[in-house]
Amino acid sequence: MSYFSNIDKIKYEGPKSTNPYAFKFYNPEEKIGGKTMEEMLRFGVAYWHTFTEDLSDPFGARTAIRPWDNYTGMDLAKARVEAAFEFFEKLDVPYFCFHDVDIAPEGSTLRETNQNLDTIVSMIKDYMKDSKTKLLWNTANNFSHPRFVHGAGSSNNADVFAYAAAKVKKGLDIGKELGAENYVFWGGREGYESLLNTDMKLEMDNLGRFFHMAVDYAKEIGFDAQFLIEPKPKEPTTHQYDFDVASGYAFLQHYGLQDHFKFNIEANHATLAGHSFEHELRYARTHDMLGSVDANQGHPLLGWDTDEFPTDLSSTVLAMYEIIKNGGLGRGGLNFDAKVRRGSFAPEDLFHAHIAGMDSFAVGLKVAQKLVDDRVLDGLVEERYNSFGSGIGLAVVNGETDFRQLEEHALGLKEIKNESGKVEQIKATINQYLLTAFAGE
Amino acid sequence: MSYFSNIDKIKYEGPKSTNPYAFKFYNPEEKIGGKTMEEMLRFGVAYWHTFTEDLSDPFGARTAIRPWDNYTGMDLAKARVEAAFEFFEKLDVPYFCFHDVDIAPEGSTLRETNQNLDTIVSMIKDYMKDSKTKLLWNTANNFSHPRFVHGAGSSNNADVFAYAAAKVKKGLDIGKELGAENYVFWGGREGYESLLNTDMKLEMDNLGRFFHMAVDYAKEIGFDAQFLIEPKPKEPTTHQYDFDVASGYAFLQHYGLQDHFKFNIEANHATLAGHSFEHELRYARTHDMLGSVDANQGHPLLGWDTDEFPTDLSSTVLAMYEIIKNGGLGRGGLNFDAKVRRGSFAPEDLFHAHIAGMDSFAVGLKVAQKLVDDRVLDGLVEERYNSFGSGIGLAVVNGETDFRQLEEHALGLKEIKNESGKVEQIKATINQYLLTAFAGE
Amino acid sequence: MSYFSNIDKIKYEGPKSTNPYAFKFYNPEEKIGGKTMEEMLRFGVAYWHTFTEDLSDPFGARTAIRPWDNYTGMDLAKARVEAAFEFFEKLDVPYFCFHDVDIAPEGSTLRETNQNLDTIVSMIKDYMKDSKTKLLWNTANNFSHPRFVHGAGSSNNADVFAYAAAKVKKGLDIGKELGAENYVFWGGREGYESLLNTDMKLEMDNLGRFFHMAVDYAKEIGFDAQFLIEPKPKEPTTHQYDFDVASGYAFLQHYGLQDHFKFNIEANHATLAGHSFEHELRYARTHDMLGSVDANQGHPLLGWDTDEFPTDLSSTVLAMYEIIKNGGLGRGGLNFDAKVRRGSFAPEDLFHAHIAGMDSFAVGLKVAQKLVDDRVLDGLVEERYNSFGSGIGLAVVNGETDFRQLEEHALGLKEIKNESGKVEQIKATINQYLLTAFAGE
Amino acid sequence: MSYFSNIDKIKYEGPKSTNPYAFKFYNPEEKIGGKTMEEMLRFGVAYWHTFTEDLSDPFGARTAIRPWDNYTGMDLAKARVEAAFEFFEKLDVPYFCFHDVDIAPEGSTLRETNQNLDTIVSMIKDYMKDSKTKLLWNTANNFSHPRFVHGAGSSNNADVFAYAAAKVKKGLDIGKELGAENYVFWGGREGYESLLNTDMKLEMDNLGRFFHMAVDYAKEIGFDAQFLIEPKPKEPTTHQYDFDVASGYAFLQHYGLQDHFKFNIEANHATLAGHSFEHELRYARTHDMLGSVDANQGHPLLGWDTDEFPTDLSSTVLAMYEIIKNGGLGRGGLNFDAKVRRGSFAPEDLFHAHIAGMDSFAVGLKVAQKLVDDRVLDGLVEERYNSFGSGIGLAVVNGETDFRQLEEHALGLKEIKNESGKVEQIKATINQYLLTAFAGE
Repeated sequence: MSYFSNIDKIKYEGPKSTNPYAFKFYNPEEKIGGKTMEEMLRFGVAYWHTFTEDLSDPFGARTAIRPWDNYTGMDLAKARVEAAFEFFEKLDVPYFCFHDVDIAPEGSTLRETNQNLDTIVSMIKDYMKDSKTKLLWNTANNFSHPRFVHGAGSSNNADVFAYAAAKVKKGLDIGKELGAENYVFWGGREGYESLLNTDMKLEMDNLGRFFHMAVDYAKEIGFDAQFLIEPKPKEPTTHQYDFDVASGYAFLQHYGLQDHFKFNIEANHATLAGHSFEHELRYARTHDMLGSVDANQGHPLLGWDTDEFPTDLSSTVLAMYEIIKNGGLGRGGLNFDAKVRRGSFAPEDLFHAHIAGMDSFAVGLKVAQKLVDDRVLDGLVEERYNSFGSGIGLAVVNGETDFRQLEEHALGLKEIKNESGKVEQIKATINQYLLTAFAGE
Repeated sequence: MSYFSNIDKIKYEGPKSTNPYAFKFYNPEEKIGGKTMEEMLRFGVAYWHTFTEDLSDPFGARTAIRPWDNYTGMDLAKARVEAAFEFFEKLDVPYFCFHDVDIAPEGSTLRETNQNLDTIVSMIKDYMKDSKTKLLWNTANNFSHPRFVHGAGSSNNADVFAYAAAKVKKGLDIGKELGAENYVFWGGREGYESLLNTDMKLEMDNLGRFFHMAVDYAKEIGFDAQFLIEPKPKEPTTHQYDFDVASGYAFLQHYGLQDHFKFNIEANHATLAGHSFEHELRYARTHDMLGSVDANQGHPLLGWDTDEFPTDLSSTVLAMYEIIKNGGLGRGGLNFDAKVRRGSFAPEDLFHAHIAGMDSFAVGLKVAQKLVDDRVLDGLVEERYNSFGSGIGLAVVNGETDFRQLEEHALGLKEIKNESGKVEQIKATINQYLLTAFAGE
Repeated sequence: MSYFSNIDKIKYEGPKSTNPYAFKFYNPEEKIGGKTMEEMLRFGVAYWHTFTEDLSDPFGARTAIRPWDNYTGMDLAKARVEAAFEFFEKLDVPYFCFHDVDIAPEGSTLRETNQNLDTIVSMIKDYMKDSKTKLLWNTANNFSHPRFVHGAGSSNNADVFAYAAAKVKKGLDIGKELGAENYVFWGGREGYESLLNTDMKLEMDNLGRFFHMAVDYAKEIGFDAQFLIEPKPKEPTTHQYDFDVASGYAFLQHYGLQDHFKFNIEANHATLAGHSFEHELRYARTHDMLGSVDANQGHPLLGWDTDEFPTDLSSTVLAMYEIIKNGGLGRGGLNFDAKVRRGSFAPEDLFHAHIAGMDSFAVGLKVAQKLVDDRVLDGLVEERYNSFGSGIGLAVVNGETDFRQLEEHALGLKEIKNESGKVEQIKATINQYLLTAFAGE
Repeated sequence: MSYFSNIDKIKYEGPKSTNPYAFKFYNPEEKIGGKTMEEMLRFGVAYWHTFTEDLSDPFGARTAIRPWDNYTGMDLAKARVEAAFEFFEKLDVPYFCFHDVDIAPEGSTLRETNQNLDTIVSMIKDYMKDSKTKLLWNTANNFSHPRFVHGAGSSNNADVFAYAAAKVKKGLDIGKELGAENYVFWGGREGYESLLNTDMKLEMDNLGRFFHMAVDYAKEIGFDAQFLIEPKPKEPTTHQYDFDVASGYAFLQHYGLQDHFKFNIEANHATLAGHSFEHELRYARTHDMLGSVDANQGHPLLGWDTDEFPTDLSSTVLAMYEIIKNGGLGRGGLNFDAKVRRGSFAPEDLFHAHIAGMDSFAVGLKVAQKLVDDRVLDGLVEERYNSFGSGIGLAVVNGETDFRQLEEHALGLKEIKNESGKVEQIKATINQYLLTAFAGE
């Protein structure tokens, strides 16, 4: 049976195509910087936004119309798997991602929930045999059920802590079973509503213990996926402990976990934390902690996680610039943690939105690679910092000087000459690269 | 004498030019939608940001290096006029704008200030005879001097009110003398630091009286410029009375001023008020109140007026879309109320920044005109709202129905069918237009 | 049957009471400024947050535990009415408020929905006979059902417009039936997700027509409630047309509706719009447009409508100051549009939260009245603006001067002397009033 | 000579005092929790805001009127020292703080600047002999001069790095000379305007080296002050590397500096970073990194550092709660990094503002100590987390369990029971404590 029978496999037709069901910029086989676009971008579909999301919001009920709407329970779960692999194939994506509750309904007991999961995981495994689409990462949803109202690994309730641990244990088992390349921790409730009733130290310490036990269990079962923390500053909590990459890095170092985790960076989480997407990528990259990406975008004027499909080209260029400079994403990928708007409720919008996002990142990749190839920013940066390549600057970098020597140097200076940072000119140049990137196609 | 002797007149060289002192997209004579780019964009240089600004900030002193730095007092004022007209000519802009204090130093008395202004205005008038550059608008700076600490037209001090009136009177005289096409009111201190010591009603009433007197005086002297309110939500005040276009429109209607004023809309002021630039343009356009534009951009993560040169192409496309749908800007223009970053302190940066901004709006114009020509959004909107073209919808629009009839209609409905809003698809289409706009050049 | 059998009627026990189920500051019969606290504060319970809200959020399922949880359908609706009137009596509140969907389930047709409403309205009417609690206002929920995905009175779909009208018509009928003192319009979807597919002019024009028809229908049936617009800037929409009070006032004037409406001002909506609560109250008061209040508070660091119970005393003091200066709220009241936090899921929390809110506003009332009685702010403001009481200032206020005269005055000024605004001292004084208000009790 | 001859020494007169020049709540000798208020609060006056600040803002010139306005150059610097010690004595504060440039003008060379500093430091040292007021901390202003346009310790220019080092070296010398209890690093330019031209890794590495050299030099000269990092997220930069306490802690750990530094936490910097003041204090406290406090407050609706004097009592209560639970501030203190509003330009406002701030923190201390004494929050927290005191919870805390055991426990659970978090009730209780704290006085 087909769920999207009116839609054929999406193909690359080039920038001038007027076919709404075609890629204009994403050409999976096109080589950019030595790799194909598919290898470099490693796109993933988010199961929850694409197959589970109902487009309700805090002020309104479900609007989504989906071809699997007439199923319920485990039948619904199975229909979604079928639809998912049809979607993956038609969209030609190499990866997908899910939370446990996305793929199978919770049962009345943990044991029953796990049985439901086993059934669907087995079905997914079968489908994966005939599909090129692999599991980028899975995770446990330890935030939606009311039991997690006060947190999961940071709950004040030890039973909840144990329940959360059991769910992550199952998640690691599933990840191993399906060959997941990564395992993600997004702690939607790992923070606080109010400091007034919160023991922050105990909660953070417990979270640290939770992560150590996860590392130990993965090692025990021989699951070698990359572990990823996904920072988010707030929402649903007032404060989440892994507010941003830097906060998460402080946490990992404090608890001795920095060698076992990297970060899964989401664009919209970055902006909610007061950072640009590229800032979070850069910070992670320079600390060798860039693991994977949740590719979406927020609305700069709205204060919540809008999880929009990425279409801001200036952002995709700068993001791909960081990723290229990182030597790619390694085992990570670009997972579309993005949902269609509530008004975009037709099944077709799922295709349009993914095409929009994939094309936007393809543009980003191509333009960023040209910037790298032409050393547009590298050349400029090299020149700006060249005073650290010799003399007193080199002594600083080599750790061969001290305050006395530096004072002596400063006292001897006649005039200090700074050069313009030329930000406006650089921005114009990047725009020029963007606007001419597809001139010949 | 030349202030920018190392720079020649900036010319259009096309998208692939590698000359940093060339326009890549702004081609003044190119016709777009029946008018030349120059006629449609009506660029203006802001005197204050380009010739007066010293690039200090609240945490640091001046960094700007300017060729007129060795002058002081009236000599400095005169040097700036010379430099300005050289700059206008080299940048090939049709307009400029200024505050009174930008062009001439304040004297020790109001009389002396006015004499200083007369001297410089006379000099500017002479320069304008040999220049194509005209005065888009002028205004009075009624916010920087300490006398305006508690406001100007909304001061608690009647002497200050009078002083502010005298300055605007002089401004109107100057505007007439120089043939200004508009006169702008930005009330930098027309608001409050704290409600606790503020008589909001008296202040707003006085502001209303102030504007009526300005209208009367302009009429008396036969100065027929378009009057413009420039909304800004806050900064330096905690709250400014013309928070945004809608607030300003409420004010104008309340005081019977709506036929005498339009709005000068600044992009960065829009975003500080929680609106997109295009929202403010649209709101003004649909109320027939769009007068002119302060072309700049803010930083989405910073909470103050950064006044950056506009390089966000997605924003310039949507802004130009509104302007085209408005039938152009009439007597208004695109004034670069934008300053180079504090680190871009070299004189050359003034050119680079204006080129970046002019190219960005030229791109916006060209892409927006193609969207209009192809009826991309018009066609979609027409179809979305077509239920108001007949039947009960038409009765609504024609004011020929009531709640009883509408209820009857509703009771008779079997099913209500909404269509997807298709936002993701539209965004992808706009990106496609942007990326292919300069393919052939 | 009793739903809150473990809780007795809440009584005033004074500031030192350690009984969590007692008022410490709200003493309904205590006279403040000539009226009792009950008469002046006119507290209302919001049906939706107290009896319908399930404490789900975008990342998690329902947590609320309610004594009526074992009912469904119309039985649930009836149980809620019973519980509501028990709650009203135990909390001793004079008012309540509801949306249509709060009190009765939607049927499969509009006709059935209306029948459900009739049944419950009749039941409520009966309960009201034996209760002192009256209906402050009712409204129609024209935002939750998927039919309103693209708006209601501003929908692109004429059928939806008609359906929305039918629901408001029914709402007006119900308001009349139950003797509502006000009727509220909160347009949760009356705005846009994206300008790209929106005809803003048609939408706003249609909204204007919608309101005129509502006014006409109320007049026709002899329903003389005060009509209230409740501004909100955004959420769930990207932009809502009645962004704030000033925007709403611009709208009302533009469509000739300003004599038929006032505003229902919500604290959290104010802060989301970038205004303080007291700003919105002041703006409405000075324009004679202050109708009623949705008493809650937002979280200053969160970008969505948290609808917290009001406990910020500095805010309640300043809010009550505006209300006292307005001569009270007239037919309006202080409706607790506030919900308990997701973690405060016990039935008892509903009492604790309302007690917290009522006490906080009682404190605000008492402190504000002392500030008024002692002319703390009035005296200061009178002195600050006294230059407008004579001479050139009086001429300004009386409209008896012009720019020529004002210039003459300004030219004759020797020195302009401003006085300190003394904000820090004023704030300290208000704190002192707050901290000593209950010293003797 | 006297600079504030019209003002006598400020004394405690109790909550009902109507003397604007009296403390109503700050009673230096009153014992709270075993220490005097003076010992516990350790107030400091910020030299820059009180003696150097001119109340200009980005849109307006200086408004401050100061008794030392007729001096210039070194005479001005000396007059300020005289005025400062008179102010300290009249305000009865135990501490003050300064940047190098606050106390002495920069000379034309670094050598001359150092000589100017030596002169004034010597004068300050003399004044300190006869004063109880000590130096809480000093610092080097490495952000205002144009040489620091691209940063100081993170500059791209090695000469600037050296110059910054020389200034900190001098600062450490001065700190030792004057017996400073702490030395502060606020890196106003240690971040970036734009990532596009920034080598983030080199800049952060250099900053790490800079701090190590500072530690080494202090050790070398035997200056044993506590070293403090003062986080700020942005402004003047787009991004500052020590964005918040967590980011700063990540940095310190990464560069092996965590044993040499604590944090100086500013309330307004906290809120600009998206955190509450008490959050930053709590985070620092639980990581044993709370060093000192810059006591001020921001405006929740303004996006820049307003540096207001603290008057928000709810905030001072929660801040003092953290400080009490920290066992006090150790060598740190409460420095008023706060400036009077631009409209509060009279010399008297400096007193009113400090009195307002000192009284507000005294209220905070008293209320917080009562909360601690009555175990209001401690009791509640203890009960909330008691499941970690035995059974599986204790096993978690003791590190004696693993995912297998936890899963077994979870599988055996019948029902998970969470308790309400009671946030509304807690807030009401805190308000009650606040409002009755001064009932008997």
